[in-house]
Amino acid sequence: MGLDHAASKPHERLARHLDTRMQAVNTLIRERMASRHAPRIPEVTAHLVDAGGKRLRPMLTLASADLCGYGGDFDVHLAATVEFIHTATLLHDDVVDESQQRRGRPTANLLWDNKSSVLVGDYLFARAFQLMVEPGNLRVLDILSNAAAVIAEGEVLQLSAARDLGTTEDVYLQVVRGKTAALFSAATEVGGVIADAPEEQVRALFDYGDALGIAFQIVDDLLDYEGDSTATGKNVGDDFRERKLTLPVIKAVAAADEAERAFWVRTIQKGQQNDGDLDHALALLHKHAALAATRADAQAWIAKAKAAMDTLPDHPVRGMLTDLADYVVSRIN
Amino acid sequence: MGLDHAASKPHERLARHLDTRMQAVNTLIRERMASRHAPRIPEVTAHLVDAGGKRLRPMLTLASADLCGYGGDFDVHLAATVEFIHTATLLHDDVVDESQQRRGRPTANLLWDNKSSVLVGDYLFARAFQLMVEPGNLRVLDILSNAAAVIAEGEVLQLSAARDLGTTEDVYLQVVRGKTAALFSAATEVGGVIADAPEEQVRALFDYGDALGIAFQIVDDLLDYEGDSTATGKNVGDDFRERKLTLPVIKAVAAADEAERAFWVRTIQKGQQNDGDLDHALALLHKHAALAATRADAQAWIAKAKAAMDTLPDHPVRGMLTDLADYVVSRIN
Repeated sequence: MGLDHAASKPHERLARHLDTRMQAVNTLIRERMASRHAPRIPEVTAHLVDAGGKRLRPMLTLASADLCGYGGDFDVHLAATVEFIHTATLLHDDVVDESQQRRGRPTANLLWDNKSSVLVGDYLFARAFQLMVEPGNLRVLDILSNAAAVIAEGEVLQLSAARDLGTTEDVYLQVVRGKTAALFSAATEVGGVIADAPEEQVRALFDYGDALGIAFQIVDDLLDYEGDSTATGKNVGDDFRERKLTLPVIKAVAAADEAERAFWVRTIQKGQQNDGDLDHALALLHKHAALAATRADAQAWIAKAKAAMDTLPDHPVRGMLTDLADYVVSRIN
Repeated sequence: MGLDHAASKPHERLARHLDTRMQAVNTLIRERMASRHAPRIPEVTAHLVDAGGKRLRPMLTLASADLCGYGGDFDVHLAATVEFIHTATLLHDDVVDESQQRRGRPTANLLWDNKSSVLVGDYLFARAFQLMVEPGNLRVLDILSNAAAVIAEGEVLQLSAARDLGTTEDVYLQVVRGKTAALFSAATEVGGVIADAPEEQVRALFDYGDALGIAFQIVDDLLDYEGDSTATGKNVGDDFRERKLTLPVIKAVAAADEAERAFWVRTIQKGQQNDGDLDHALALLHKHAALAATRADAQAWIAKAKAAMDTLPDHPVRGMLTDLADYVVSRIN
């Protein structure tokens, strides 16, 4: 493959390497999101599934199974499961966040209604559980049902922690594990389990997914304050305007003097925001080096992800997953 | 037990017969609805779980396992699973229906917010899946994950069918199987499966739960038009005002002349309702004997439930389940 050169992005190289398997995943997703009885279901899901995204999570499952030498068919079921859980979560998140856009298109709750988003999300969760039962592997079921509980718990925790200035970095980490890392680590772990890999390899795959997911979310939260909106598709300061207490602000609040604390109480906790407040928030983040410290945290998690990958056997996919970790953090370097 | 006389209600006799097991179910529910990280979760679930209800669905699982001679511990896990799925569905239903009251108390979406109801419902679904994995029985997992998909599909179907005068009795039946009967039949079926009962007994338990659930919902829809509001806790005509196309109206629409059809189009499809419309609707239901025909349908389903029960071996619980079927329909006799 002449295109498979070092300059292409690691997730693109993974997608090419796993092309046949990914096509099988896409076929299975399309089959299983259909509903004989309720045509509203494929309408809503097709809107979201066709919008694409990088299919990062199912790719992690396929890659992990491949890396551990799996030769069966059930990696495809588990990859589709992971994507269904992710899509269901997005549908419910958009209701909870009252979002208007997702992947550059109007959200389902805007195009149809919140009711459809809630119920079609439930349908996708149920379909995910049907899919994960099919391989008949109880440990896989244990991992994925636990992940679903951690995801929901993280989302609820975020509801109560979001505007609470008492939120610590530990609580932030719990929320991030729930909302992002739990599905990444489940995706990689089940790839190893289905391949019947040795215990230390399964553990390393879990650690890689966990650290990659945490870094992924920290980078997202950092880009919200220092990203280039043409590259990220988000506007700088969205989280500030939505009063989300993310890692940069948690660090700045921890270092705040009395006047600064009053500023955060007013803008985040009470939500009284005026012109110029975002600029002042950015100035405080820079003053306390909160953005630099957040960047260092993301880099530390990526180092952990790569260290976990280094313990796995030599394999073409291993290099791609290591490069993927570097790529996640390259957006903020 | 002196109280265990023929005059007490069948679900009360079942509850007494299964008392120790039901206490174990309640303990497990309380344990598993806790969350170390997100205190909002037990607040919301306790509100709903403590409000009680008759715990009919978990009782059906325990009764079915008992009837088939089960001597293990996992009936309790499956009963708790069924109640968690039911509770999660109620939380999401109240968001979808914008309900204000449930079991005589304000709904969670009113006390907290829709966000909490959506996310705590997701948490309970995930907890249900964790619980159902524990017995390690793949057939049980298959039944319960299929039921979850049928439930969600039925709810979505109801969204699109609710105000559509083209809705047939077949579609109504699909909706009812989804929103009510699928969990009843899964509850009874898994009781037989976990007890390793012969195939024809498992099938009979499924048929009993399916028919009982369908009758249960038809009775509910009938009482909405002819119930005594002090006994049902519902106001006569709630479904009419909420423009829900239930079985009595479907029957009356099928028999409607042109003027009557225009009335249903205006009141149900377009939602333009005036004083006196409910009385006119009731008059049309009586004119076409739609209430009597609906009652006959419920009775026919109850006969099916009892016939299925008759094929099962003699056992104290069998009589209670037969009486329970009679009791469900006694409210409209």
